[in-house]
Formats: sequence, C-alpha cells, structure tokens
Amino acid sequence: MNLIEVAKAAGVSKTTASDALRNSGRVSERTRQHVVAVASKLGYSPNPVARSLRMARTGAIGLHLPEVLTRSEYYMSFVFGVVDQAATMDYDVTLLTARHVSSHRFHRVDGVVLGDPLETDTVVHGLLDSPVPAVTCERYTGEAEPAGVVLSDHAAMLDTLLDHLHAQGAGHIAFLASSTVTDWGRTLQSTYLRWCERHGTRPRLREMAFGSPTAIMQDNVRALLNADPEVDALVCAPDGAAAAVLPVLRAAGRTIGGDLLLASCVDSAALTHTDPPITAIDLRPREAGAACAQLLFDVLSGETPKGTVRAQPIGLTERRSTRR
Amino acid sequence: MNLIEVAKAAGVSKTTASDALRNSGRVSERTRQHVVAVASKLGYSPNPVARSLRMARTGAIGLHLPEVLTRSEYYMSFVFGVVDQAATMDYDVTLLTARHVSSHRFHRVDGVVLGDPLETDTVVHGLLDSPVPAVTCERYTGEAEPAGVVLSDHAAMLDTLLDHLHAQGAGHIAFLASSTVTDWGRTLQSTYLRWCERHGTRPRLREMAFGSPTAIMQDNVRALLNADPEVDALVCAPDGAAAAVLPVLRAAGRTIGGDLLLASCVDSAALTHTDPPITAIDLRPREAGAACAQLLFDVLSGETPKGTVRAQPIGLTERRSTRR
Repeated sequence: MNLIEVAKAAGVSKTTASDALRNSGRVSERTRQHVVAVASKLGYSPNPVARSLRMARTGAIGLHLPEVLTRSEYYMSFVFGVVDQAATMDYDVTLLTARHVSSHRFHRVDGVVLGDPLETDTVVHGLLDSPVPAVTCERYTGEAEPAGVVLSDHAAMLDTLLDHLHAQGAGHIAFLASSTVTDWGRTLQSTYLRWCERHGTRPRLREMAFGSPTAIMQDNVRALLNADPEVDALVCAPDGAAAAVLPVLRAAGRTIGGDLLLASCVDSAALTHTDPPITAIDLRPREAGAACAQLLFDVLSGETPKGTVRAQPIGLTERRSTRR
Repeated sequence: MNLIEVAKAAGVSKTTASDALRNSGRVSERTRQHVVAVASKLGYSPNPVARSLRMARTGAIGLHLPEVLTRSEYYMSFVFGVVDQAATMDYDVTLLTARHVSSHRFHRVDGVVLGDPLETDTVVHGLLDSPVPAVTCERYTGEAEPAGVVLSDHAAMLDTLLDHLHAQGAGHIAFLASSTVTDWGRTLQSTYLRWCERHGTRPRLREMAFGSPTAIMQDNVRALLNADPEVDALVCAPDGAAAAVLPVLRAAGRTIGGDLLLASCVDSAALTHTDPPITAIDLRPREAGAACAQLLFDVLSGETPKGTVRAQPIGLTERRSTRR
C-alpha cells in the first residue's frame, strides 16, 4: 500500500494526498479529513522517519567501538543490534577507524553511533567534533555534546545489587572499579561510595584502567583481600573480572557463595558456566545497539530534537555466587 | 615521494613516467630503464594494488559473520583485523545482513569478506551467488567458488595437539566435535579419526551443532564420560566448550591436568584464567581478518588471480590443563 494508491482511492492527486497526510495546510480541512479516512481504511500508515531518510545522502551510518577485547561479547552483540536496526531502514553500517578521523572522511555516512565513548579516544574526539550527528551509548564524559544519548540506569541497578548482597548477609562489600574515563565507570564508583555512606560501612574500592589485563585484576583483588580479610562480598565492575579472579579467591581459601559473595557489573555467557555461576547485571547490549541506531535515525529525520536522551532498561541475573 | 616528482627528476611527462613504471610498452626500453632507475634512486615504489584500487567504484568492502555469540571474541578480533587492513587502503568496511542479499544491494561494496561461511547461511549463499568477488576465511563447504580463500592448517595443528596429549601419557583421547557445516569442523573431525586409526585407538567422538549452548556441551561430555570412564584426555572443538564443561568434569571427580587432560581447539582470554588454565590452539583471528582483506584487495586489483588460496599460520598454547 503506497501513497499513489491512497491518492487514487481518495480521488485526489498524489501531491494533495501527501499534503493532506503531512497536515501541511495547503489542502482544505475537508479534503484532509477525507484523505486521512481513506488512508486509515486502506491501512496506510506513513512512516515519517523512513520518508525523511529517503532523502538522506549516503545510505550508511558509522559505528565506532573501543578496541577492548575483554568486552568483545558485549560489543559483538551491540554491533549486531546496530546492524539489525539499520537494516530495517535499508541503511548500511560502516566501521569507523582513526583513519576516517585523520582524513576527515565523514562524507560517506549520515551519522555515527559511538559505543562507550572513551574520553581518552582520539577517534571519539574527532567524530564528536565533526559535522556528522553522533549518538552515544552512555554519556560522553568529555567536552562535546552528542546529538543523542542512550542511557541505562546503572546507579539504580548497582543499588539493587548491593541491596541484594546486603540481604544475603554481606556486611563488608568490596568493589573492583573500572576507571572514570567512561560515564559508566564513574557512575558505578559514585553509586558504590554513596551506598556505603548510607549504610555506614567503610568503602573498599580499587580502581583499574578500562580494559586492564587479567593479571592486573587478579593482583588488585589479592591486595584487596590481604589488606581487608573481613571482606565478605566482592562486586567487580570490569567485564571479565569476576571470572578472572576466581582462582585468586580460591587460593585465598574463600568459598564463593559461602564466606564470600561474588557479582559482576557485566554479564556474559562465561559467567553461566563458572563454578559456581556468577550473579551479574545484564546490560542487554543488542537492545542498546538497536536503540542507538533508532535514536540516530529519529534525529536524522528531524522527528526527534538534537540532545535527546533515551533510557534503555537493564536487568539483574541472580546466580549461585550470591546465594548463601 | 609521488609520481610527479619522479617524472620531474627523470625529465619526462607524468604519463610517460606512469607508462614506464607500469611497463605498458608505450615507452622505449631505454626510457623505461631510465625512469625505473630514477624512481628506485628516489625510493619511489609504486603500490600497484593501491593504484588499481583508486579506480574502484565504492571505496568499501562488505563483511559478513555468523551470528554466533559463543565465538564473539574470535569474531571481534577478526572484525578489527579486516577494518585495520581496509583502512590502510582507505577502504571502509560495511557489515552485511540478510537484507542486503534479499534486496540484491551489492552495488555499495567492491567485494566481500566472509568469516566462517556456514553452508546453512542463506546470506552466504546470496553473497557467493552475487557478482561481487568474495574471500572466505576457511573453505566454503557448499557449491559456490569464492574469489579467494584464507586457510589455516587445522589438521596439522590438531595432530600436534593430539601428539602432545599422547606424549603426556594420554591413551584414550575423547573429542567433542563441532558439526560439519564448516570446513573447520569437518577437518577437525576427520583429523581426529585418522589420528586414532594411526595410533590403533578407538575413537570417542560426540558431534554438536555450530554455536550449541553450554547445557548441550555439558550433557554431551557427561554422556561421553559415563559411557567411557577410561577416557584420560578430552579435546573440545567448539569455542567456549572447554571452559563450559569444567564443572561437569569436576562433578565426575576428575582432576584436570591429573587424571584428565583437557584442551580447546579455539583459544580465548577466558582459558587463561580457568583453574587450571587450558591448553588451546591460537587461531590468530586478527591476523586472519587482515589476511582476508589483503587477499580481497589483491584480487580486486588484478594482482592475484581469482581462486587463490593463502595459508595463515596458527599456533598451540600449552597450559597447565595438559601438563601431568
């Protein structure tokens, strides 16, 4: 069902039908109502986003991700989410590198999606400084203002997780933090510190660089437990850290789900088959990728104003590592 | 150093310099030798691949991967390898979906890279049937003939791994196989069966679908050990399987690296921090992705004939799970 068929059935020209459906004011109210009624009867629902995008220049959007392989499962899902959503608009997804930025080669994409924009990533700087509209997944902590942001409530979900550990009897919860170059890392740190303050417990926090190797994570947890043997729960922010530190916890004579509860701020398939399986926050990366692409299209089509922030739900998956 | 400077130094026109360096026959042998000598003295080495590609149409290559999240670390590395290599040619990488195939929308890419082309993937069928040249990572087991193939010697590497287990005292090696919809899966199965035949041992093989969930892997290994308690080594082909079956092996009272040796045919960061760390074949996915893009550019430029097969080295990383 297309506009021409609607116009024919309504006995008007294609232009008049289009004007009527767009409520452009160039047709009489009587004609407008007639055309809308015919369109509705025929089941024709014009998609204003798709209509505007047909006039777009390149048919492609760009995608940039941090090259951090510890988060590969998250990012691969995110990529498929972006590609899926773009495909529904007949859009291609192009992967952007430092070379696109250094050569100012943005003319091949209508807009870009930035997954986890790191304050320290020069490609992110270049893309946010470019004239191409950008949607970020999580807030950018640097200076620039993206055209749109898709945001999850990590503060509320970490509070839920900490409350859960507390309800399971944990009184001395330690936190392995990710650095503050991402908004996600910042939010988790401040949420943990505020939670400790509210509960009158001393914070035990160790911060690591984004994408730190396994050995660094293990060294930090070893130091944390040595300095503070009364720790009875550990929350790991960095992707992969919770599984990576299991040998360290075992070597320290700890029983996961027994005298030490363990949880991760990033879920992954690996956490379902550790011994025991590990409780984690499910960031729903595929849905987040799709939401970023959708917001970008909505901004490109003019349907949604620049600067729009959209919420993206996340969840908590409780497993045996936090059940006493 | 560019062609104009070479022409100036040699005292000839840019066209003559270009003809001389391309050995086009339109210049005398004496002029040709003179221009080549000047170019060589100035350190100018024309890149014939880059030169031919400048005449290409889209400035982009396509990339298609199976949507199997168990292999996400492998694929994410592969993606970055392709993108890196394409960037050196100032090429973009576009992710291709079923929608590109159903709408015959190939005109936006000069060629495509297919990572692990599954015989059962309709997108792969469509791309290999299209007029766009395709390079596959691993052989395609279906009917079509790709323009190029990047191939690793999985047979030789699995033989090396089985010999290593044998040298460590394993006499009854079981094999958790991946299905034969990929050439990789096929090669590993037949290599294992031939190795058993050569060593006069009874094969113990269980086959699983590509991308099977954890629970299926665990059920298969449980059944394998129940049916055959004398098994003293287990090689897991599917990515993620070796780590996933650890709880099953422990529940069966087995000691990894003690009465049971364990190895994986796909390495990943997760295998470095299991207890014990697990021996694995390193497939070097980033290098494989780069090699695929390079071969595609070589085919597109006419430097390399269609049907070329290139070898890509892989390695074996021995860890504590196979040390008695």
